[in-house]
Amino acid sequence: MATFILNAWYVAAVSEDVSNDEPLGRKVCNFDIAFFRNADGKIQAVEDFCPHRGAPLSLGKVVNGNLVCGYHGLQMAGSGNTHSMPKQRVDKFPCIRSFPVVEKFGFIWIWPGDPQKAAEEKLPNLQWADNPDWAYGGGLFHIQCDYRLMIDNLMDLTHETYVHASSIGQKEIDEVPVQTTVEKGQVVTSRHMENISAPPFWQAALRANNLQDDGPIDRWQICRFDLPSHVMIEVGVAYAGKGGYDAPENTKVGSWVVDFITPETDSSIWYFWGMARNFKVDDPELTKSIRDGQGKIFTEDQEILERQQLNLDKYKDKRILKLDIDAGGVQARRMIERAIKKEAELHLTGDLAQ
Amino acid sequence: MATFILNAWYVAAVSEDVSNDEPLGRKVCNFDIAFFRNADGKIQAVEDFCPHRGAPLSLGKVVNGNLVCGYHGLQMAGSGNTHSMPKQRVDKFPCIRSFPVVEKFGFIWIWPGDPQKAAEEKLPNLQWADNPDWAYGGGLFHIQCDYRLMIDNLMDLTHETYVHASSIGQKEIDEVPVQTTVEKGQVVTSRHMENISAPPFWQAALRANNLQDDGPIDRWQICRFDLPSHVMIEVGVAYAGKGGYDAPENTKVGSWVVDFITPETDSSIWYFWGMARNFKVDDPELTKSIRDGQGKIFTEDQEILERQQLNLDKYKDKRILKLDIDAGGVQARRMIERAIKKEAELHLTGDLAQ
Amino acid sequence: MATFILNAWYVAAVSEDVSNDEPLGRKVCNFDIAFFRNADGKIQAVEDFCPHRGAPLSLGKVVNGNLVCGYHGLQMAGSGNTHSMPKQRVDKFPCIRSFPVVEKFGFIWIWPGDPQKAAEEKLPNLQWADNPDWAYGGGLFHIQCDYRLMIDNLMDLTHETYVHASSIGQKEIDEVPVQTTVEKGQVVTSRHMENISAPPFWQAALRANNLQDDGPIDRWQICRFDLPSHVMIEVGVAYAGKGGYDAPENTKVGSWVVDFITPETDSSIWYFWGMARNFKVDDPELTKSIRDGQGKIFTEDQEILERQQLNLDKYKDKRILKLDIDAGGVQARRMIERAIKKEAELHLTGDLAQ
Repeated sequence: MATFILNAWYVAAVSEDVSNDEPLGRKVCNFDIAFFRNADGKIQAVEDFCPHRGAPLSLGKVVNGNLVCGYHGLQMAGSGNTHSMPKQRVDKFPCIRSFPVVEKFGFIWIWPGDPQKAAEEKLPNLQWADNPDWAYGGGLFHIQCDYRLMIDNLMDLTHETYVHASSIGQKEIDEVPVQTTVEKGQVVTSRHMENISAPPFWQAALRANNLQDDGPIDRWQICRFDLPSHVMIEVGVAYAGKGGYDAPENTKVGSWVVDFITPETDSSIWYFWGMARNFKVDDPELTKSIRDGQGKIFTEDQEILERQQLNLDKYKDKRILKLDIDAGGVQARRMIERAIKKEAELHLTGDLAQ
Repeated sequence: MATFILNAWYVAAVSEDVSNDEPLGRKVCNFDIAFFRNADGKIQAVEDFCPHRGAPLSLGKVVNGNLVCGYHGLQMAGSGNTHSMPKQRVDKFPCIRSFPVVEKFGFIWIWPGDPQKAAEEKLPNLQWADNPDWAYGGGLFHIQCDYRLMIDNLMDLTHETYVHASSIGQKEIDEVPVQTTVEKGQVVTSRHMENISAPPFWQAALRANNLQDDGPIDRWQICRFDLPSHVMIEVGVAYAGKGGYDAPENTKVGSWVVDFITPETDSSIWYFWGMARNFKVDDPELTKSIRDGQGKIFTEDQEILERQQLNLDKYKDKRILKLDIDAGGVQARRMIERAIKKEAELHLTGDLAQ
Repeated sequence: MATFILNAWYVAAVSEDVSNDEPLGRKVCNFDIAFFRNADGKIQAVEDFCPHRGAPLSLGKVVNGNLVCGYHGLQMAGSGNTHSMPKQRVDKFPCIRSFPVVEKFGFIWIWPGDPQKAAEEKLPNLQWADNPDWAYGGGLFHIQCDYRLMIDNLMDLTHETYVHASSIGQKEIDEVPVQTTVEKGQVVTSRHMENISAPPFWQAALRANNLQDDGPIDRWQICRFDLPSHVMIEVGVAYAGKGGYDAPENTKVGSWVVDFITPETDSSIWYFWGMARNFKVDDPELTKSIRDGQGKIFTEDQEILERQQLNLDKYKDKRILKLDIDAGGVQARRMIERAIKKEAELHLTGDLAQ
């Protein structure tokens, strides 16, 4: 069975990764893709293979909105058709594959599957993006693991106590049970901890929000998984006893942890992480400091995930446990499996019809 | 046929490698193993695989004598049974494999085979260890070669003339024939050189022992191979004509070269090397200086062995020679082969009985 | 089908690569070979495998014209017969393979195929080598690509416009068509550009030759491919309108770009490159400066070739185009294919006759 859903939008890059002059080569779902901008600045995505001699197009330059191969100057259009080549008639040149691609919310989204099914309406709605009431900062990690291990990781935050002991971990995460539900195609795992002390990361956030950092608090974590592999986590703390997640604005601080997990290959990912907040949105220093802190924390995940992957590769016959705390990951995997199976069936039907 | 004997004690580490707080992950005979100490400081060895999500246990910490997984906090006991996990009932958790392990003579010994057959009495007797009349210093190398190439190396010291020309090599090693015998399960290859000059290493040893370093000497090398893959070499020099190996104590200097060769995989080893001496045993500076010198010399072996292994891999169909000088290695390999065959038969009988 | 011709002379090294004391280990056409000099300084080539224990002979030393193994001192003669070994009778030792090898024109040439067919007369004639009217400077690159990609590269110089834009590239190379012919077993691709400006490399060459560097020039490139994989390129510029390639000596400057492409494996090469010139031949500073410039330019090819190879490996089922500009490479590949096929047939006939 395939490893990932193909008929879906994946984040391939952030807008700034692709300038007007230089292409970006990046592999997504096992496809090598060259991203570039046409003369209008509109994002394009084609197979990273020059039909002339097979050089990667992403080594070239962009001239007048075409991607010029860095070997012998073939000019590729975003459609996958050769636009021109010095002294050559190109109308019989073989076409290469182009991919549906859109730019929205500051991200470049690729659709690796059937182009007929791609539609901008199928993009997730990021309420915090392009919204003046919110600020966003984030980064990108390249991690050697199956993308589903990262989903498991994000849907079971008990790991914070062990992996992130010095920043966001605290023993109450282990101790308070989670609730996992599946609603409208979304897996939601939530945990509400009451009357505890704030760990260092949240103490800093309280201070940044001009709130007291040393009193008892209520803390919440609401992890939301959406197909194909996005996890948005509402996190926050409020003064204890004020209603937790529903406490009045002036007694709490919260944010969204943003995770777009894009498979590069069957065993590696592009992990776009970040944090969206609706306080002090005009403070770029705070954005930077949150991003630095988050980057440091997520580096701790990188090591454990890569070592976990290597270990699972060694012990291929071993089964692993599915406990209550794993319910979020288990439900997400089931949703993915069903979607992959459905794609396979559609493909089969399509083949038979021909 | 299997590459190595499993029902045997192998050196996995030195005592200092495993503290009370931190586990050690090390692969032996293709098994990934996490070593740690229980609450009494007693050494434990379990498969390096957390039954919860498959992370390597050796990335974790030791708390109250249990190995706590660094991902979600499962606590593993030395028995391979899960001791506890936050908010989970663990009685139905799958057990992981534990290995017989003992600590003796400053080393940690692992038994990768049938636990029923493991017994402390089967450990070799190291007369120089835990003995106030002797001093020991040594080190560990990780080498990419079949462990048997290292046995060959140590059972045929003519290589010293070429590989260690500037320290312990001398042409008389080539010229004086060796005698190889097999007695009581031990292969012994000995060479006695008479009336020669001492090479630099032995000149220094004579001086360290307050003996003259510039006169003619007799020199001996007695290599003793024991299953599964240990080589102890009695080496020394005496004033010429005083009886060589049997010369009076005040005319000679000698020591044991200690070599525990532990297979990591089919084509890599953990090589524990050292030297035990019964002179100036209270001089830690001398211990250090001998260890440094020996380490440098054995680095020369590392290169040639890794290159030899690569070459043998390239020329898989070539046969190599078995000369007189190779008799020690040849006999050792035969002894290993017989033991492996016997293990395979036992295993077969066991299978048929079921 | 085999990847390369075996019955041919390939450049394995330059003379200075092999001293009188030290062997050189180098793989050519998938054969690991140890090169060394006998007592007369004559070059020898044997399989890089000691018949005693399989160590690479190239790790050893040369003593009295024999190659002494660095492990246990076996002495190998250039014939592949063991010359001697300390305290051992060697007459029954297995022989290892020796290869026809000659030294000429400052290069060491190896014949990986049938020794009966090797003959010094089959060496190419390098009119500029060993010739006081010419100076030569060059270097060696180790590149991870099929040797035929390098031939393609050198037989289609339109890549200069893109890969070497800042040194020898100019748009006229793209614009002026080439002519490709096959004559006397040689593929020739030539391009003559008229009334253009000189790119930086040629401006410097004009100055070095005391010619004006800022006027219009005619420029030529004549690429000559010979079996098994040599490409010699006549390049030059002349004052415009003086006859181009045939212009009087005092109005032009030219040289030979020398390319010996030696397969190391099916997907890697030893690339011996250089430039031979017949002006200012007594100026070693100029030789050095040309070599440095050429080395820098050819480094640009290395990157594109290795990336092209990786991309072709990824897209194994894709076909690439054969355009007019590719005719030189296409013809060269055909010539190689025919020769390989002929070798295979000869081999078959030989087998049947036995």
